[in-house]
Parts: sequence; C-alpha cells; structure tokens
Amino acid sequence: MRVVDIIAKKRDKQPLSDSEIQWFVENYTSGTIPDYQAASLLMAIYLNGMEKHETVALTMAMAQSGDLLDLSGITDYTIDKHSSGGVGDKTSLVVLPLVASFDVPIAKMSGRGLGHSGGTLDKIETFPGYNVNLDEETFLRLARETGLVLAGQTRDLAPADGKLYALRDVTGTVASLPLIASSIMSKKIAAGANGIVLDVKAGNGAFMHDVESARELAQMMVDIGVSIGRDMVAVISDMNQPLGHAVGNAIETIEAIETLRGGGPKDFREHCVEIAHLMLKLAGRGTRWTERETVRDEIINHLDDGRALSRFRKMIEAQGGDPTYVDDLSKMPKASIIHEIVAEETGYIQQVRADAIASAALALGAGREKKDQKIDLAVGVIVNVKVGNKINKGEHVAVIHANHEEKLKEAIQFVKQAITYSNKPVDTLPLFYDTIYGQ
Amino acid sequence: MRVVDIIAKKRDKQPLSDSEIQWFVENYTSGTIPDYQAASLLMAIYLNGMEKHETVALTMAMAQSGDLLDLSGITDYTIDKHSSGGVGDKTSLVVLPLVASFDVPIAKMSGRGLGHSGGTLDKIETFPGYNVNLDEETFLRLARETGLVLAGQTRDLAPADGKLYALRDVTGTVASLPLIASSIMSKKIAAGANGIVLDVKAGNGAFMHDVESARELAQMMVDIGVSIGRDMVAVISDMNQPLGHAVGNAIETIEAIETLRGGGPKDFREHCVEIAHLMLKLAGRGTRWTERETVRDEIINHLDDGRALSRFRKMIEAQGGDPTYVDDLSKMPKASIIHEIVAEETGYIQQVRADAIASAALALGAGREKKDQKIDLAVGVIVNVKVGNKINKGEHVAVIHANHEEKLKEAIQFVKQAITYSNKPVDTLPLFYDTIYGQ
Repeated sequence: MRVVDIIAKKRDKQPLSDSEIQWFVENYTSGTIPDYQAASLLMAIYLNGMEKHETVALTMAMAQSGDLLDLSGITDYTIDKHSSGGVGDKTSLVVLPLVASFDVPIAKMSGRGLGHSGGTLDKIETFPGYNVNLDEETFLRLARETGLVLAGQTRDLAPADGKLYALRDVTGTVASLPLIASSIMSKKIAAGANGIVLDVKAGNGAFMHDVESARELAQMMVDIGVSIGRDMVAVISDMNQPLGHAVGNAIETIEAIETLRGGGPKDFREHCVEIAHLMLKLAGRGTRWTERETVRDEIINHLDDGRALSRFRKMIEAQGGDPTYVDDLSKMPKASIIHEIVAEETGYIQQVRADAIASAALALGAGREKKDQKIDLAVGVIVNVKVGNKINKGEHVAVIHANHEEKLKEAIQFVKQAITYSNKPVDTLPLFYDTIYGQ
Repeated sequence: MRVVDIIAKKRDKQPLSDSEIQWFVENYTSGTIPDYQAASLLMAIYLNGMEKHETVALTMAMAQSGDLLDLSGITDYTIDKHSSGGVGDKTSLVVLPLVASFDVPIAKMSGRGLGHSGGTLDKIETFPGYNVNLDEETFLRLARETGLVLAGQTRDLAPADGKLYALRDVTGTVASLPLIASSIMSKKIAAGANGIVLDVKAGNGAFMHDVESARELAQMMVDIGVSIGRDMVAVISDMNQPLGHAVGNAIETIEAIETLRGGGPKDFREHCVEIAHLMLKLAGRGTRWTERETVRDEIINHLDDGRALSRFRKMIEAQGGDPTYVDDLSKMPKASIIHEIVAEETGYIQQVRADAIASAALALGAGREKKDQKIDLAVGVIVNVKVGNKINKGEHVAVIHANHEEKLKEAIQFVKQAITYSNKPVDTLPLFYDTIYGQ
C-alpha cells in the first residue's frame, strides 16, 4: 500500500477500505507516514467526508492503536458516559455516585481538557488529598472493591487519536463530523465500556452551534458504537445558556454536592436524573441487570435520601480526599472578591449566552488555554437567572467570584454582554432536544 | 496572520487575499510554516480551487521567492516557450535556432525532467563537450554575443515552487489546474521573459488527457501571464500519438537536425513552424520587432536554406560541443540492437498510443523515474506510421533501438500494444486543436 494512493482515493471521493484505514493509522502512529501526508488526507476527509463503514474502521483502528482496557474483572457489563462539553457541566460529579448507588459499578477515566473552566478532574481536586493519578492496578482494585472510581487515564488510551488530534488542531481539520465522532468513540471503546451514554450539547456555548449538526454527530457516534457491538444512547441537550448556575471549579463542585443533597438548580438536577436514568437503562441491558426495573422516582429518591451523596463521600475517602469538605462546604476554596451584577431593566431574561459566560470564567482564570496551564479553582460566575425568568431592575442576576481586580473588570463586561432583556415574555429553553437510541 | 486561519478560509471556499497568499509563500519558503500545514492548504486548494486573482498572486509570490532573471542587457523584449511535455517532443532543439536565425535573441533555460525520455538538456548533451552548466555571467554574455544560448538554470529560480512541487508530489495534490498553472508560470516569470508561447498537449501521452482540460489549463496560464503584463499565446496540440517519429534522446536529436536541414517528419516540421511563427509574432510586439512582418514562408525558407541549422551549429560550438556531429550524424550514440516491428494486418493504422510508446522508451532506459538517475542516450523507438496511414501486413511500422535483450522484450510488448489496426479507413489526428491569444 502507498499512502499517496490512499490520499488520492479520498481526494477523488472514493470510500477507503477498512484495511487501507487500518494501515494508515498503524503507520501514522508508528511514524512511518509523515505528518504532511496525514495532513493532506485529513483535509480530504474534512472536505469529502466518510461513509459509515469508514468511520467505524477509523474508530477501531485508533482504539486498537494502544491497549484496550479490560474491565471484565469488575463487572460483566460496564457503562460510561461522555459529554461533548458545555458551560457549567458538572454532571459527572453527580451521576457517577448516583448510578453507583444502584450497585452499578462505575470505573470512570476523566480528563482536564482545555476551555473556560477545568474538567472533571480539576473539579474533584478541590478535595484536598484526592488522588486522580492511580496506577491501573489500584484503579481496577478500587472499582472492584468500592464499585466507584474516578481518575485520570491510567495509560495512553488510543494514542493514534492523540497524535491525529494534535495534527488536526494545527491543520484546520478539527470541525469534521466523522473525525470528531471517531475521535470520541475511539477513546470510549479503548476505555472498555459495554454501554455508553452520550450527551451532545447544541448551542452557542457548545462545539455544535445548532441542533441539526449536534443530532448528526450524535447519530454518527451511536452508529459507530452499535457497529462495534456497544449499547448506545445519545441525548441532544441545550447549551445556549449555562447548565445549572455555577461556572467555575470549586463553585461547580459545591453545586454538585448541593444536588447530591437533594437540592441544586432545578435544570441541573433534572439533567442529572435523565442521564442517570439512561445509564441505568443501559446497565439493565447487561445480563446482571436484566431483572432490575429502574424508574425516575427511584433515582430522585437516591438524591433526596442521601444515598447518592453517601456514595460520593465514600469515593472521596477511598481516593485519599478529605471527606469533611463534603459536609462542610465552607471549607471549599474561596475567591477574595465577590461582585454582584444586577438587572439593568425590568422585564424578562431574553438570553444568558453560554459562550459569553464561558469567556467571563476564562478571563477570571477558571480554565486553561494550553495544556499544563495552572487554573484558579476558586473563581467563576454564578448566574442566578434562566432564559424566560421575570426580573425587576436592580435584582441580582449573577455573582462573580474573582481574585484579581483587572480580571474582574473583564469578566463583568462578558457577563453584561451575556445577559439580555426583553419587555415581552420570553419562552424558556428546553433541557433536551432529542434522544437517539442505538438500534 | 495565522496559517490556520488561511487554511480554514480556503477550506470554507472563501478566496484568499493577495497578501495572505504572499505571506504563506514567504513563510513556507523560509521554513516558518511546516510542511503539514502547507499540505493541508494544498489539499484544500486542490478540492476547492482558486479564483483568477489567487492564481496570479500565487504565481507572483512564487516567482518572487527567489531572484528574477534580468535579461534586459540582451534585448528589450525576450521571448520564451514552454511545452507541457509530450512523447517525441524535441521542438526546442529546432525552434530555438530557427527563431534566433531571425535575429531574435534567445536565452533559454531548460530542464532534464522525469519521464519516458530525457529533457532538452539530455538531448543536447549527445554533442560531446556541450556545457549546459553555465554560470550566470557566461549565460548572459553568450546570449548577448551570439544571440542564442541553451543551458540549465543558472540559479534557483522560483525556489518556493520547487519546495511546493516536491510537497505536492507526495501529498496527492499535483493534478490541480491552478497549482499546475501557477507552478509553470512562476518559473517562466522568474526566467525574465516578456512574451511566452505555451504548448499545452492533450491526449493519452500528455498530462492532460482531453482537449477540454488542456484548454482550461492553457487559458488559466494565458490569463495569469496577461495579468502580470506578459504577452501570451497558447496552442493546444495533439498528444495521442508521438510527435514526429523518434522517441529517445540521440534519435530525437538526429530527427531535430534532419528537420533543421529542411527534412524531418512532416508533422514535426509543421509543429515547429507553427511554434516558431507564434514566437516571432510575439517578438514582433516588442518595440524592436514591430516593423518586422514575419510569415510562415520565411520560416520555412530558414529551415530549407540552412540558416536555422547554421544557427544551431554556432550554438553547439559556442557552448563547447563538437560541431562535427551536426554534419555527420553517424557519430551519434548508437544502440547495439536494432529490432524492427512489422504490421500484423493489412489495413489502416487506428492508434499509435503515445502513452504505450512512452512506456517502451522508459523500459529501454531512455528516461528517468528519479532525479539524478542515469539515462541511456542511444536507445528509443522510431515509429514510422501515423494514425490513418494505409499499411500492408509485414511492412515496417517501428524500429526499436535497444542495448539489452530483456529490456527489448518489454519494449516490444509496449510497441505492439501501442499500434492498433482497422480494416476501415481511419481519420488522421489534427496537429493542433486550438490557439488561445492573451487579451
């Protein structure tokens, strides 16, 4: 095989064979194929697309470029979740212990990521002592013994994806649906899950700005997973306004704990219940869970009666974190400046632009633009209003937690841009646009 | 400027600005922009095309990536010719001295190239002692003193084109009309010509297989030249059968000299007269030649009365070659095996496929597949027939000049594939399909 022939084939809109895709991924990962030939092929894929069998082959080739994690020692059916990333998305902190409280074992590898605020690992690290860097033996042992573990990657999963993603980032080939779908799915497949719940966000604060393209991406990932023999379900959720109220690290963790205590913002609680519901439904497909009939009321009970919170506390303890933080939220990192934003008009909230709130959080130092950049756990924005809320001039609409006056000024501008008003009633935004089940 | 933004713009089908193209070419040539980003942009250009102003900007940026040759010390109006490459194309050997015999100075830089047989430099080197490696001072002095010089590039003209072409070659992005057009034109502009005659071949033995795409390429190059202030004319010529009879190096040189003596194959002679005519017409546009009214008859006279041949002999001498070879063609390199191919049927010649004859010449060792590969000057194929000729079974249709029995066997297969027969009369092929004048 010659890589130039593979490039020419895709350039000329012909589908690549599975063996061509596998050969390319193997030889690119090993360094035999140089970056410039891979870059040319990526642009041809970006512009000419890929058929379903090609995305499946690409996903499998990338997943198999490293070791596949074997979770069979924990349970015969493992479930995973993935969010395409949104503003105020602290869902994992709630749904992982919530699902685990139903005796469904969860062995979750999470990330830090780039963006307006940290990833799940950053948020969980607000608990002093919590160890996210587990070796594989400890990771699997904790999952087996406690039924819930949340840590960073124990090894380099799907290294081909890492290498290709870095190249896509500098060659204008990130925003390609088949490349995005196979990138996400390759890591999920390598992480060993049998059933996967995908939360694909749509809106100005998400990678996919409109529902249609989010649905297309979700369908593609569901199709890939099903083709590889995974149980799949995807929701399309709104990301035109932040999820919940808090956007930052410590303040999001606090909001997650409040939700685990049976409180929390209504929209965020409802979002968590739905994701947990879908995860439990998938878990019910596995041989071990076929008899269990899980219902939403039961899930809500697990939040209200403290079973989910107890499961969370156990996880913090098991991984060396200080569990007293769970019960005394005043111990959490605090910002030095608390600045309140008030409504500029009486009327209805027309927009709470998630993208602008994200910019405010990033300006405050809550996120990172480059890998290994240090982030400020204490800072962020708490938005008290949702689209459609009735509001009086002078009422609090947001609170900014800052550690620097200059950064605060920048954040204030972004928050003021984010929140707009109308003198006529405004429809609320839906939480979910659609649910796609793997066939 | 960021190269990722430029890639994204072209990827999204937006035309690039002149300054973006110039910035890209400068930074790619200097090595600031890595190959993988250039490769991604090249594929986006391949698939999304370029507008006219973009090809003009790309041409100028590549031409200006090195020094521009200054021929103003030789004449106030210089002409150049370019052939897109064909089988049996020894035109330069005839038209350069032919045009020079009209006192139009010619300072021509030529190449060796890859392909079924050598380039003009290889063919002229059949004259022992002929020096193609002139320094720039000698090149310009010879042009000034003798009015005709033919050598290799005295310096690296349009280095950006060289670097980009090497990248296109390994990234599946060669066959893009705007990239081909700007590549050719950048070198012509850098070589300093005021007027340029383009010979764009169409047919199975050419890069462009059909007349339509050849016409499109020719029009694009004419437009680029005119935009940059050059006088332009392009012919679309047939390359479904070889030009003339000889395909090889020494045998093509012999055929060129026979043509300069007033003989030679009818089609090749006619082709040379037409190209020379167009070159002289262009030269007539320059201030120095406005009064001259050149006609075809005069050109033919210069072939028939030996003035063109005399000009050729002077050039060989001036560059250190042995001029006795011009008058005694028996001195030319000879192959050890002469093998005749005879007609397999009585009837009409239906095809003399140029591509298959090229394969025969390459198999014999007349061309090179890699740079710096040694070629055999003596070998090649002489095809005695043209499409439409009436032929009797057993008559000679071709003669193979070989130096190895094994290579001869391979060549015989190709020649037999090339020549096909019909029992009904077959139309002859035209020499030219079209002429495009710069507006």
